[in-house]
Amino acid sequence: MKGAGYYSKATGGAKDVIDHGKSLVLGAIEAIGQTDNTRPFTMSDMGCADGGTSLDMVGEALCAIRARWPERPIQMVYTDLPRNDFSQLFQMVHGLTDVESYIGTVDNLYVMASATSFHQAMFAPATLDLGFSATASHYISDRPCQISDHVHMVGASGEERRAYEEQGRRDWETFLRRRSDELAADGRLVLFNFGIDEEGRYLGHTGGVSMFETFNEIWEQFRDEGHITGEEYLATNFPQCYRTVEQFTDPLTDKGSDVYASGLRLDHVETRVVRCPYERDFTENHRDADRFALEYIPTLRSWSETSFAAGLSADRAPEERQRILDAYYTACEERVRQSPEGHAMDYVHIYLVLRKD
Amino acid sequence: MKGAGYYSKATGGAKDVIDHGKSLVLGAIEAIGQTDNTRPFTMSDMGCADGGTSLDMVGEALCAIRARWPERPIQMVYTDLPRNDFSQLFQMVHGLTDVESYIGTVDNLYVMASATSFHQAMFAPATLDLGFSATASHYISDRPCQISDHVHMVGASGEERRAYEEQGRRDWETFLRRRSDELAADGRLVLFNFGIDEEGRYLGHTGGVSMFETFNEIWEQFRDEGHITGEEYLATNFPQCYRTVEQFTDPLTDKGSDVYASGLRLDHVETRVVRCPYERDFTENHRDADRFALEYIPTLRSWSETSFAAGLSADRAPEERQRILDAYYTACEERVRQSPEGHAMDYVHIYLVLRKD
Repeated sequence: MKGAGYYSKATGGAKDVIDHGKSLVLGAIEAIGQTDNTRPFTMSDMGCADGGTSLDMVGEALCAIRARWPERPIQMVYTDLPRNDFSQLFQMVHGLTDVESYIGTVDNLYVMASATSFHQAMFAPATLDLGFSATASHYISDRPCQISDHVHMVGASGEERRAYEEQGRRDWETFLRRRSDELAADGRLVLFNFGIDEEGRYLGHTGGVSMFETFNEIWEQFRDEGHITGEEYLATNFPQCYRTVEQFTDPLTDKGSDVYASGLRLDHVETRVVRCPYERDFTENHRDADRFALEYIPTLRSWSETSFAAGLSADRAPEERQRILDAYYTACEERVRQSPEGHAMDYVHIYLVLRKD
Repeated sequence: MKGAGYYSKATGGAKDVIDHGKSLVLGAIEAIGQTDNTRPFTMSDMGCADGGTSLDMVGEALCAIRARWPERPIQMVYTDLPRNDFSQLFQMVHGLTDVESYIGTVDNLYVMASATSFHQAMFAPATLDLGFSATASHYISDRPCQISDHVHMVGASGEERRAYEEQGRRDWETFLRRRSDELAADGRLVLFNFGIDEEGRYLGHTGGVSMFETFNEIWEQFRDEGHITGEEYLATNFPQCYRTVEQFTDPLTDKGSDVYASGLRLDHVETRVVRCPYERDFTENHRDADRFALEYIPTLRSWSETSFAAGLSADRAPEERQRILDAYYTACEERVRQSPEGHAMDYVHIYLVLRKD
């Protein structure tokens, strides 16, 4: 928890992904039939972090909801895990930071937060009208095994790879079943999920230097040079699964699945690559390798540091752990500084719009 | 924001107040008629801080609600201001701290938080079934004026006293009107409010040394000795109004009032004094003045420090402000240490149970 908008400031690209996908959200609102007006309309952002990346999109969506249902109360529920900085989220949404918020522009609006995991039931049955989630569902509920020669499942093979894919399959089906129960009739889910596209591309792996290979090489080097132990290297595994388009859509198209039986339907699927803003700025604008390294690595660090920290032995003192992590990201920076070409955290998302029959 | 359960650990007495009043909450749940089962049952704790003082009561209340409506989804909504430590609240409620939580003991339960002020609309109309609030409604929405010779309205007189009472009256009526709109038919409010009882007693003013007089005397001394300026002394005013029983009940019994017209009714009113646990421990148990001072002052500091800090000039550096505040509470401790007899933060509450017709 770094606070003070650290996450959203370090993740300009994640905001681009959401802003570019706005029309899918607005289209979903248009497509919802005139449902029960006696109930508040409930929208959620599931896995919201500090709320900064979705703030503009949510503001537009709430205006569109208000326009369609002029008299209906609206509940906007932000969700993330209990250790998330909800105070920062609320301060941003309530207009107490330097970021412009939608608060005050939509009447009869009730903003809330939930710290229940999206692997669990988060809403009362049939009360969710529009569920949104971006760049969150790749977090799995448990690490199924250690990966012997990599830090992320995209670099795993054989049984280890299959174990992560199986965990990812079960968590995705659970996510869909829970949300299906929570959705009101004709409700919508709009999900921008990290995944592997038709050409095998995924986050930071779009033709140039592969980001997770860089992560793994430098962590291996830290092991080989004795900065971390072999056990710590093995224990470092991102609790994530990047799914393919088919893995995302299978439960929605297989008429024998529980998800299909629950009434959840696939309205739309597409994949998009959103270019890394730091790489673009370097390539097209400043060509300053130092600046690129100093701007680019913090965006990686913002979401990866907890996974590297989790691999370190609990016997190490907090300052020692922090020293190792600082040295690690300094080494990542050095790698980019010395050979900047090809480094890029391009975002690869599978965009889904789902409907509850 | 001190985090890590600071508020609830420093406020054992506030938890006593809630625990002693449990039967009023459970009675209110019993008294609610069988209302619309198709809607989730919504309970709230308004002005919850880190949720620690109400945790046991809320757990019992949720069990009682579940027993009365075995199939009904329950929403538990905690509310406080945006700068509240909601992460600490969620970690405590979700069982991630050393405090035992009710989470997992009640099925079909959805815990949420709101950072909307209780002076505003917090819930969609007619969706609140049981609103609870303890030791919070004395915070007024604005300071109406400076108090020339005191830090708190209980020490103010004349026009200044009347200005605070008038602000308190308007905020209380707004609170009741908003909650009345939000309450479902036959819903209940159970409110344990700081106030002034029939014998003129209020927080820390129950016959011994008057706590707010001590606060004021030492702050005056800080002014006279030049630690703070005259402007800073004047600018230090707790944004609070302690109301009398009549001031609390007037809008509920005056048939011409907006509150009465909205259908809100007084079911029950009583006053209670809950003895200061630190003074009791000193008097009946250890008789150690040093220990009393060191245990007693932090409970005062936990809720009063922001008001003294707000009086200090914005031109002072943060470290200087902190140094003054540290010195102030050290002086308070010294006062208790040298003459411990009579110091006590006894809690004086007006207990109200209200019903929406």
